[in-house]
Amino acid sequence: MTTLQDIYSSRDANTSAIIARQDPVVYAQGTYAQALTEAQLESYARDGFIVLHDVFNPDEVQAMLAEVKRMSEDPDVVKLDEAITEPGSDAVRSIFRMHELSDMASGLARDPRLIHVARQVLGSEVYIHQSRANLKPGFKGKEFYWHSDFETWHVEDGMPRMRALSCSVLLTDNNACNGPLMLVPGSHQQFIACQGETPDNHYKQSLKKQEFGVPDPISLQLLVEQGGIQAATARAGSVIFFDCNTMHGSASNISPWPRANVFMVYNSIENTLEAPRNGLKPRPEYIATRKKFVPLEPLEAKAAAI
Amino acid sequence: MTTLQDIYSSRDANTSAIIARQDPVVYAQGTYAQALTEAQLESYARDGFIVLHDVFNPDEVQAMLAEVKRMSEDPDVVKLDEAITEPGSDAVRSIFRMHELSDMASGLARDPRLIHVARQVLGSEVYIHQSRANLKPGFKGKEFYWHSDFETWHVEDGMPRMRALSCSVLLTDNNACNGPLMLVPGSHQQFIACQGETPDNHYKQSLKKQEFGVPDPISLQLLVEQGGIQAATARAGSVIFFDCNTMHGSASNISPWPRANVFMVYNSIENTLEAPRNGLKPRPEYIATRKKFVPLEPLEAKAAAI
Repeated sequence: MTTLQDIYSSRDANTSAIIARQDPVVYAQGTYAQALTEAQLESYARDGFIVLHDVFNPDEVQAMLAEVKRMSEDPDVVKLDEAITEPGSDAVRSIFRMHELSDMASGLARDPRLIHVARQVLGSEVYIHQSRANLKPGFKGKEFYWHSDFETWHVEDGMPRMRALSCSVLLTDNNACNGPLMLVPGSHQQFIACQGETPDNHYKQSLKKQEFGVPDPISLQLLVEQGGIQAATARAGSVIFFDCNTMHGSASNISPWPRANVFMVYNSIENTLEAPRNGLKPRPEYIATRKKFVPLEPLEAKAAAI
Repeated sequence: MTTLQDIYSSRDANTSAIIARQDPVVYAQGTYAQALTEAQLESYARDGFIVLHDVFNPDEVQAMLAEVKRMSEDPDVVKLDEAITEPGSDAVRSIFRMHELSDMASGLARDPRLIHVARQVLGSEVYIHQSRANLKPGFKGKEFYWHSDFETWHVEDGMPRMRALSCSVLLTDNNACNGPLMLVPGSHQQFIACQGETPDNHYKQSLKKQEFGVPDPISLQLLVEQGGIQAATARAGSVIFFDCNTMHGSASNISPWPRANVFMVYNSIENTLEAPRNGLKPRPEYIATRKKFVPLEPLEAKAAAI
């Protein structure tokens, strides 16, 4: 339900604004599960993200990469709404709902190395709000402008509070030259309410090029003056965990090196979706889980192999 | 004159090809002038570029940056053909012929810290083939795809041999997040002949978006496998010198930090322009000096202040 006083109101025809975060970053003092050390938790709480290096071994990475490539070339997958192509091209840029389309990705979503971090940070059981594989091709990978995921999830999906996190499992090396994820440390503590109302079916375009829910330059400048920008460069097999409200983006990729990752969004089972804000229609199920909110069961069998 | 056997033939309706460089990188063993050390010369000869850090002091940088900004906002400059705007915008992206439009830039072209490097590497007196100021704005600076300058200068301007170098004087910090110049070490030893014939007046579009003289992905992949990619990150006041045939480009800039530089192309007085190749009409004088080839006189007065 849209409340009369939405503390994270955005795209409501008011001008842009910076609103202080009203929610914890780490819930229940990080005691719900054991995954990150105390120092790692502190770092995550301060910056709004953490890069864990070499979480998955090369064999695991190659298997997952092969799975994503196979799917991106499978006509039965490419024809699905879940498969998003590059602007002006037929090359698959993203495949959504990976955790249901692929057994391997389903296992990844429940892998203790990921899900226990999510359970620990969010202080509850979790489910997958969104999952996808991203393939940013070499030579002509497009940029992705700055955004807070939460801004979109709150307005377009009706996610009530900041109690979700994303993790990006790197399937290729991310270096300074192939358009790595860039994050603004500390930006998760400020909510940038964006200007402009949202057109219907905005998601069809926003997956290719964001035009609404875009933070204004003055707010961005302020966040960057306060926190700088960190490019998350790391080897394949590393994982970037980041808060749902951390400002992030990536530049274009003209290098020959493609950039691939699998991306999982864990939401707290205590933060399930309400109606979208501003009278918007819900986005499709493959972009935002809405029909069933079932806690995801960790694959404990794998835990011993960590 | 177009010779019957052009060793660096390109865009002549043949397919793309990789041709070994036929010219020295450092001429006359680097004895014509004294500027770079022996180790620096070796590094330049091997990589095809060198970054010299903190060549200009902050006061010099601020003065030059103020000059470029003043010019980019001066209606009398903006209306000139020399002023190039961003695609889809009125913001000035480049100002050509800086060494003649601005007394300060004229002094910079003859500054011993630049011109003696050019004279030493090229083994002769030199003149300015092209000069420009580049302003890559924050938030929406566009990418510039991989290219060899020499490929264009040879085909479109009739520059006979590889005996020219560029220097980029950084007027803002270039870091990993604001679209720094990226270079492929060693790529200057291979000439990538490009596919496709050149339309008339190609320069009008190519300054904004290159569509001809673009190296093919397979050749690029090969060069990068051999040499990797180096992002030239350095503080304002640093200078990047690079060979006319070094493959380079830059990604988009979504950071709030603009990226500005002054760019000078020194050509050897023994390598003056012939007719353009493939029957093309010459480009305008502000893009390629053709009417007078006069050796540039170093400003020795400043040398004592180095």
